[in-house]
Amino acid sequence: MQIAILLYEGLTALDAVGPYEVLSRLPETSLRFVARQSGLKRTDTAGALALNADYSLEDVPHPDILVIPGGMAGTFAAAKDQLVLSWIQAAHATSQWTTSVCSGALLLGAAGLLKGLTATTHWAAQAALEQYGATYLPERFIQHGKLITAAGVSAGIDMAFYLAAQIAGPEMARAIQLEIEYDPQPPFDAGSLQKASQTTIDLTRQLLQQQAAQEQARMAQRAHKS
Amino acid sequence: MQIAILLYEGLTALDAVGPYEVLSRLPETSLRFVARQSGLKRTDTAGALALNADYSLEDVPHPDILVIPGGMAGTFAAAKDQLVLSWIQAAHATSQWTTSVCSGALLLGAAGLLKGLTATTHWAAQAALEQYGATYLPERFIQHGKLITAAGVSAGIDMAFYLAAQIAGPEMARAIQLEIEYDPQPPFDAGSLQKASQTTIDLTRQLLQQQAAQEQARMAQRAHKS
Repeated sequence: MQIAILLYEGLTALDAVGPYEVLSRLPETSLRFVARQSGLKRTDTAGALALNADYSLEDVPHPDILVIPGGMAGTFAAAKDQLVLSWIQAAHATSQWTTSVCSGALLLGAAGLLKGLTATTHWAAQAALEQYGATYLPERFIQHGKLITAAGVSAGIDMAFYLAAQIAGPEMARAIQLEIEYDPQPPFDAGSLQKASQTTIDLTRQLLQQQAAQEQARMAQRAHKS
Repeated sequence: MQIAILLYEGLTALDAVGPYEVLSRLPETSLRFVARQSGLKRTDTAGALALNADYSLEDVPHPDILVIPGGMAGTFAAAKDQLVLSWIQAAHATSQWTTSVCSGALLLGAAGLLKGLTATTHWAAQAALEQYGATYLPERFIQHGKLITAAGVSAGIDMAFYLAAQIAGPEMARAIQLEIEYDPQPPFDAGSLQKASQTTIDLTRQLLQQQAAQEQARMAQRAHKS
C-alpha cells in the first residue's frame, strides 16, 4: 500500500503531518512525500518550517492513497499549476482513496473532482470551494466513495483515523490512536464557527488576513528571487 | 518572543509540528527549528519525513520558549548527547517557558530538570522518565512554574493552546483554535490507557516494539554510514 502526501511551497504543515502521523503507522505501507520538484518546501507561517519532498510527482504516479494538504497563497498558486492538477487527475484515476485536508480541497476542485458533490474545507475557504461546483458543508469530513475531503488543518487527524479503520480495521485504528495518545482535551472550545463567539470569529478573520498578506509577500519575494 | 523547537534524528514529527502550528500563529513571535547541527532530521516512522533545522543550537542560545519533542531510539540517543543537554540547561536558565511533548520529557529529565517533580510523558515511557527522579502522572500536561511536560504525541497540541493563552490571553488562544479548526472528533475513543481495551493495549505494545526495532536498525545503519 503506497501513500503519497503532496507538498508545495506555502502548505500548512499540520494538514500534511497530522495524516502522516496516523497513516505511516499502518503495517505494510510505504509513505512518500512528493512535490512538483523534490526538495524543501516551506510552510505558511512565515516559512518557519521546511518539510522535505523526497520524491517528485513523476516518481510516484500511482499511489494507492493520495493526501492533499492545504495552505494559503501557496494553495491558490498550486491550483493554477497544470502539472500538479494533471498528476492529481491521473493518480485519482487509479487510487483506492483520494483525500484532502483544509484548502487542499481547492486542488481537488481545480482538478475537476468535486463537481456536483458536497465537500468540506477550511471554513474560510468555502466560497473558493464552491467556485469549483462543489457544495460546502461544515462537517469534520465528507466521503463520496473513495473521495474524502476534511475540514481545516487539524481535521486531517480525525479523517486519517477513519481512513486507517477502512484500510486495516477499527482495532488497528484504535491501536494507532493509543500509540499517539490521541485523547484530545482542548483547553478552550472555539474550534468551529458554530462554537466560537463573534469576538473570536472577528479576531480570527483579522489574523487570517494578516497572515495571508505576509504569505503573499513571502511567495512574491521568493518568485522574484528565482 | 523567540520560540525554539528542538529537532533531532528520529524525532516524532507531530510532537514538534503540533505545538509549532499553534505557537507560530502568536503575534510578534519568531519561531526557529534548531538542532545540534542544522539540516534535515528524519522522523521515527521509517524516516518517511524529514524536517529541516534552519539553525544550530549555538545560533539560538536563549529562546524565550523551549519545546522539546520526543521520539523512540532517537530520544534515547539525544538523552546521552552532552551538547544537547547543556543547551537545554542553559536555555532553561533564562527561558520564560520550558516544555516537552511525549518522550521529550526524558531529555528534560536527563538535563536534571525534573528531579523530585511530578511530570508526564508517553505512557510507554513512564519507567524511563522515573529513572530521572520524576514521578509520572497520566495527565494531558503538567505544569510546575515555567516547566510543562505533555503526554504522548498529540498532547502537544493541547499544551500549546494552554501556553498560547498564558502568553497572549485566552481570546488569542481561541482565535488560533478557530484558525486551525481544532474541534477534535476522533472516530474512536482509545486515546489513553484508561480508555483503551486490553486488546488495543496489547496490539499497541506490539506495534511499538516492531517500530522501535525498525527505528533502532535505521539509526544503526545511519551511524554506520557516517
